[in-house]
Amino acid sequence: MSGHDYIRDGGAIYARSFAIIRAEADLARFEGAAERVVVRMIHACGMTDLPRDVEMSADFAEAGIAALARGAPILCDAKMVANGVTRARLPADNPVICTLDDPRTPDLAKAIGNTRSAGAMELWREHMEGALVAIGNAPTALFRLLELLDGGWPKPAAVIGIPVGFVGAAESKEALARDGRVPFVVVHGRRGGSAMTAAAINALASAVE
Amino acid sequence: MSGHDYIRDGGAIYARSFAIIRAEADLARFEGAAERVVVRMIHACGMTDLPRDVEMSADFAEAGIAALARGAPILCDAKMVANGVTRARLPADNPVICTLDDPRTPDLAKAIGNTRSAGAMELWREHMEGALVAIGNAPTALFRLLELLDGGWPKPAAVIGIPVGFVGAAESKEALARDGRVPFVVVHGRRGGSAMTAAAINALASAVE
Repeated sequence: MSGHDYIRDGGAIYARSFAIIRAEADLARFEGAAERVVVRMIHACGMTDLPRDVEMSADFAEAGIAALARGAPILCDAKMVANGVTRARLPADNPVICTLDDPRTPDLAKAIGNTRSAGAMELWREHMEGALVAIGNAPTALFRLLELLDGGWPKPAAVIGIPVGFVGAAESKEALARDGRVPFVVVHGRRGGSAMTAAAINALASAVE
Repeated sequence: MSGHDYIRDGGAIYARSFAIIRAEADLARFEGAAERVVVRMIHACGMTDLPRDVEMSADFAEAGIAALARGAPILCDAKMVANGVTRARLPADNPVICTLDDPRTPDLAKAIGNTRSAGAMELWREHMEGALVAIGNAPTALFRLLELLDGGWPKPAAVIGIPVGFVGAAESKEALARDGRVPFVVVHGRRGGSAMTAAAINALASAVE
């Protein structure tokens, strides 16, 4: 037998993880709900240096929490984001919507000359007003969001903009942060992804750790 | 109008991303299919320093590729891992199995005094022989895998062991790498997660980039 000695209690693992994060990470710029969002994002990626790349508008956490409490839908660019949302934490059984696999999406993408992730957003219009938008994969989706807002679409309540990667990720997050039209959180640079994005949603959904 | 200038072609984005990764990352320790696995893992997390933490047994890539070609199931500890598998890349319409939400799982977890992720694996026994095991979230699942093998369970063909976090993640990956019974890849330390794990599966499933 290997006889591995490890903590087997889920609650104890969470508590110890969050204590390590708060002991190691520099969270001085974040308070209250904003701090809980960043802590949970760190928990999802294992990197305590994450805060140095996090930019959050002063109204983000409050706007996101209020939107979810009102029953706002969560619009996700990727299935992994949608799947990372802990349904039991949602305050109003909020709809979690990902249109990437909708049968209309490939044609919509072709029609706008953009990726499938960007094309899928054409189906978000009726849900956009006051929604929580969560972009955790595709930089093209985040750029497209800004274009749709430029084009007169209704505004979401808040935007989690954390696409990952090497082409357009840093630039799209910079563009969202400079845009200023909507409450936002971004992770500047190449880091990001569906796990951090879902973690931010889960932190807004409930203060329970 | 914001007039953002960005690449909108999915294929071009992939090609440029992979070129940047190969220009920046130190991949000298990896060749052929092993290199493609590491490149795709970097692509999923945006971090070109990832290879320094990657340990892969010499037989891992070949064993994983052969298993999938034979139709082996992919056993995932988390829904986000299962959701990250690109079904169109799978060579044999391989079953992608995650038992975390099985109604029997809470009782199984209680019975073994472990987390839900570890308890869910009790339902893997009939699928384990020759399977591709992908642990991308819970350190307890990776520790439990070693305990099940100690207990005489059939051996999987290969194990992707990339749980993320602060409690047990580094230790469980170290234990898998030292165990040596099965072909494996790990990312040492705290980094890891479902995106990197799914990326490794997707790289084994097809050589197409």
